[in-house]
Amino acid sequence: MLSDIQISRLHQCQPIADIAKKWGIEDSELSLFGHHKAKVSLDVAKRLAAKPQAKLIIVTAVTPTPHGEGKTVTTIGLTQGLNAIGLNACACIRQPSMGPVFGIKGGAAGGGYAQVVPMEELNLHLTGDIHAVSSAHNLAAAAIDARLYHETRLGAQAFTEASGLEALNIDSENILWRRVVDHNERSLRQIEVGFGAVNGPVHQSGFDITAASELMAILALSQDIDDLKQRIARLVLALDVDGNPITAQMLGVAGAMTAVMVDAIKPTLMQTLSGDPCFVHAGPFANIAHGNSSIIADNIASKLSDYVVTEAGFGSDMGFEKFSNIKVRNSGYKPSAAVVVVTLKALKANSGIESDNDINLPDLARLSAGFKNLQWHINNVSRYGAPVVVAINRFPTDTDTELEWLQQQINTTAAFGSAISEAFAKGAQGAQDLAQLVKQASEQDSQFCSLYQTEQSIETKLLTLAEVGYGASGVSLSDKAKEQLTWLNTHGYNALPICIAKTPMSISHDPKLKGVPTGFEVPITQLKVNAGAGFITALVGKVMTMPGLGIKPGYLDIDVDQNGEIVGLA
Amino acid sequence: MLSDIQISRLHQCQPIADIAKKWGIEDSELSLFGHHKAKVSLDVAKRLAAKPQAKLIIVTAVTPTPHGEGKTVTTIGLTQGLNAIGLNACACIRQPSMGPVFGIKGGAAGGGYAQVVPMEELNLHLTGDIHAVSSAHNLAAAAIDARLYHETRLGAQAFTEASGLEALNIDSENILWRRVVDHNERSLRQIEVGFGAVNGPVHQSGFDITAASELMAILALSQDIDDLKQRIARLVLALDVDGNPITAQMLGVAGAMTAVMVDAIKPTLMQTLSGDPCFVHAGPFANIAHGNSSIIADNIASKLSDYVVTEAGFGSDMGFEKFSNIKVRNSGYKPSAAVVVVTLKALKANSGIESDNDINLPDLARLSAGFKNLQWHINNVSRYGAPVVVAINRFPTDTDTELEWLQQQINTTAAFGSAISEAFAKGAQGAQDLAQLVKQASEQDSQFCSLYQTEQSIETKLLTLAEVGYGASGVSLSDKAKEQLTWLNTHGYNALPICIAKTPMSISHDPKLKGVPTGFEVPITQLKVNAGAGFITALVGKVMTMPGLGIKPGYLDIDVDQNGEIVGLA
Repeated sequence: MLSDIQISRLHQCQPIADIAKKWGIEDSELSLFGHHKAKVSLDVAKRLAAKPQAKLIIVTAVTPTPHGEGKTVTTIGLTQGLNAIGLNACACIRQPSMGPVFGIKGGAAGGGYAQVVPMEELNLHLTGDIHAVSSAHNLAAAAIDARLYHETRLGAQAFTEASGLEALNIDSENILWRRVVDHNERSLRQIEVGFGAVNGPVHQSGFDITAASELMAILALSQDIDDLKQRIARLVLALDVDGNPITAQMLGVAGAMTAVMVDAIKPTLMQTLSGDPCFVHAGPFANIAHGNSSIIADNIASKLSDYVVTEAGFGSDMGFEKFSNIKVRNSGYKPSAAVVVVTLKALKANSGIESDNDINLPDLARLSAGFKNLQWHINNVSRYGAPVVVAINRFPTDTDTELEWLQQQINTTAAFGSAISEAFAKGAQGAQDLAQLVKQASEQDSQFCSLYQTEQSIETKLLTLAEVGYGASGVSLSDKAKEQLTWLNTHGYNALPICIAKTPMSISHDPKLKGVPTGFEVPITQLKVNAGAGFITALVGKVMTMPGLGIKPGYLDIDVDQNGEIVGLA
Repeated sequence: MLSDIQISRLHQCQPIADIAKKWGIEDSELSLFGHHKAKVSLDVAKRLAAKPQAKLIIVTAVTPTPHGEGKTVTTIGLTQGLNAIGLNACACIRQPSMGPVFGIKGGAAGGGYAQVVPMEELNLHLTGDIHAVSSAHNLAAAAIDARLYHETRLGAQAFTEASGLEALNIDSENILWRRVVDHNERSLRQIEVGFGAVNGPVHQSGFDITAASELMAILALSQDIDDLKQRIARLVLALDVDGNPITAQMLGVAGAMTAVMVDAIKPTLMQTLSGDPCFVHAGPFANIAHGNSSIIADNIASKLSDYVVTEAGFGSDMGFEKFSNIKVRNSGYKPSAAVVVVTLKALKANSGIESDNDINLPDLARLSAGFKNLQWHINNVSRYGAPVVVAINRFPTDTDTELEWLQQQINTTAAFGSAISEAFAKGAQGAQDLAQLVKQASEQDSQFCSLYQTEQSIETKLLTLAEVGYGASGVSLSDKAKEQLTWLNTHGYNALPICIAKTPMSISHDPKLKGVPTGFEVPITQLKVNAGAGFITALVGKVMTMPGLGIKPGYLDIDVDQNGEIVGLA
């Protein structure tokens, strides 16, 4: 079989303007970015306000493994499949970060014959939204450090006399706003800035990957430009010397940050290999952020089609939980069905059984042990009230015996049903069974509800997430987290949903605990307010908000050939 | 008169596709970015190879002052004027950096009725080229620090065994490649990175503004994607422990960096308020870099028109010198005429005479003293061999008496002639006299030649630039510069042209020396190789490669209104 980039390159894409037209987007609502990408105006949703919302299908997965479960493949494949059986479906996915593209080998366009194309345009700059987020984010960082510098240099009174601005009295040890870059940049995780005689007070700072920026979450959760602007204004950038929050509004930088993001608020339209529309918008990771693509893209897609297929990052304990308790709470747009993606390999890898056997070989003992992980995710998703379809993403080495065994086991669970997806190898045709099953599931009654009420105390919400969301025996708060809890309550930031930042490699906080861990306590190390995004981030254990490049990074294989074409993207 | 953004907003832009078509760009050579920007393929120049090159007009100025001389206004106005008198002219300018846009109040689109529109699209992201430069630059920084980390952690032998890559033995005290961000970020000028147990060796680093990135110079000086790739491969990122250069090629990151820049290599087409084509491409500053827009844009414009008007940053000692000795040497494209922009205010401010009088009021003593600065710049430009036209950028407060006096004085110089430009207030019509004069000048014989030969020793080239380029009595090298000189000679980097990084606010190295300073020595503090750009940068005195935000930064005025439109950009 051809590589992903070969398939993408050989495919004759349709002009994106033709796809937009076919799906009812008017010329005035479209801004082309080259021939295969276009930004789409939010006016579409207004113009088509009277059309009923499409059925929303959310794609999640079992606990991820290094083998790759194919969640994006299934999201794109399902969209292709739904259109192939005569329905109208749009996909909505996140914009890939360049960090993983150059770090580990691989982009995030799906794969095989279930891809968004052209894959190199998706995986690199797209239409510049991540750059806009980085730029707006770092403008705020520059603004706060410049203010600190001038106020320190002149003193509060002289500063006010010279500038006409009220002194903010920023506490240099409590600058909460870090910086961002869209790369895997280990050495920037923790830095000290301001060295040199004229460069300002030396103080700690650091860089996160842009996907972890609160602005990225804001982009994904906003309803429109006005909502975006108001959220930016509320961002807490630092504390003053009395411990009170200093917001972007108080610093006078919220308007300029919004100006940097006026184009970024429009989703980008691309196409699947079958020519179906795919919106790409916002890119928060699901371990260190809320892990779902934008509400705006869903809203537009919902007016152009009858089925919107979107994806939540990592396993259902991660992106799907945040989809349910954060995104749906902001959008009000409830899913009609959920898809849990699984592979035979993933179940074996999640079995907790160490084995030297090739993971591609049949091994019912490991499969059976690993099945418990799938069962847990089915139950976890079912709890929220939407029908659950299990998509078994088939690999060429998979045996019929094991697949049949798995489907029988799934029949004993709360799942609506299961289907084998061969979207990777066969594109739309390989996903038709799955599409039929999802269609049926989405016609069921769905009573979607969140796990907790935002009015509950922060402790209660944390405990609910730990016990119900992960099956833990409880939570423990570090001393720092306890202090931060008091601060949050004192400053009125208690009635927000919680965004847990934890490892995706286990349902628990410990990546080594495979399968369905029990009897563990969730250690909360920090609690941070994200007043713009509208949630409290709880850091669990050691969470890296900036990845690092490995010993043999993906960038080594990437090049530009003599025709000016990019090669080596996987 | 309306503000710049009001004029831009009220203007009905033509679809950029229509302008492209009118000027002979084929559909397949155009990539739209919205309705008013498009990237243009390098294939244009190949297809039209047989057409003679357009006459190249380079716009420079007297020593800049805080009052603004209107060089971009004159560049755009002259293009409008040339088209208005029935000729075919394209403008080629640099992409504005967001640093100044949010730092000091103002963009770089020209002004009044001599603007590139829409100005907010020019001043913010444009088509993402600066973001691409930042991203490719910082990828290299991440790559070198990651390699240092893994080699340090494992030791050279174990690193090679684990990765299959040869150890580079990077000297952590000689990482030459800093990082970049497109903001005014004082506190990032000098930083320490790698704190924390698992984040790598602590070492010094820092950020420059993206305009100062060597990649930006490379983008501006490359002929095509292959040239770009080869230049990137040659970049010296660090020294090894033996003092030998480590290049991007050796690190294996050159291909990926090129991949990040495959779209950036295409210039962006926009329009003037008169609907004339304006290419915007690359944005090196003229104080800390070579300060000229791209060779690729000039080459394309040259095939579409009969006159290409481009601009070099700051006074003629800065961007024009580098245009002559660096850009023309790379492009082989010699100018047919040069325009020196001057204003009455600039001459008074350059007079060296302190005065409490309003600078807008007539003051022949100051004007006469300041005239020497203009005379110096006329002579400086004439030396290179192209006819010199002086453009007097008229302000509403200018009196006829002073203007007449100035024109008479110019008649006594080596200049071909002078014309008053009212492009700011009157657009194309206000620049017709200037256009006629430039047309005549460009019909003269022009014997353009550079100031020195690259084969000369570095010391000789520095001395030539100091004595002939600035009228200095000599140069002095710091101990560090002397060491670096030896290193450059040892490693074969001696036969490159020189790019001086110095203050633009004086012909000398000292911003306080106004008018025509004499009897000074040029203090070279550092000599750095830019093997990709193909020059040696000589830092003169204290040169900041990263600006800072002021006490009342421009961002305070910028906002997004209820219609989603950006307001407050000046």
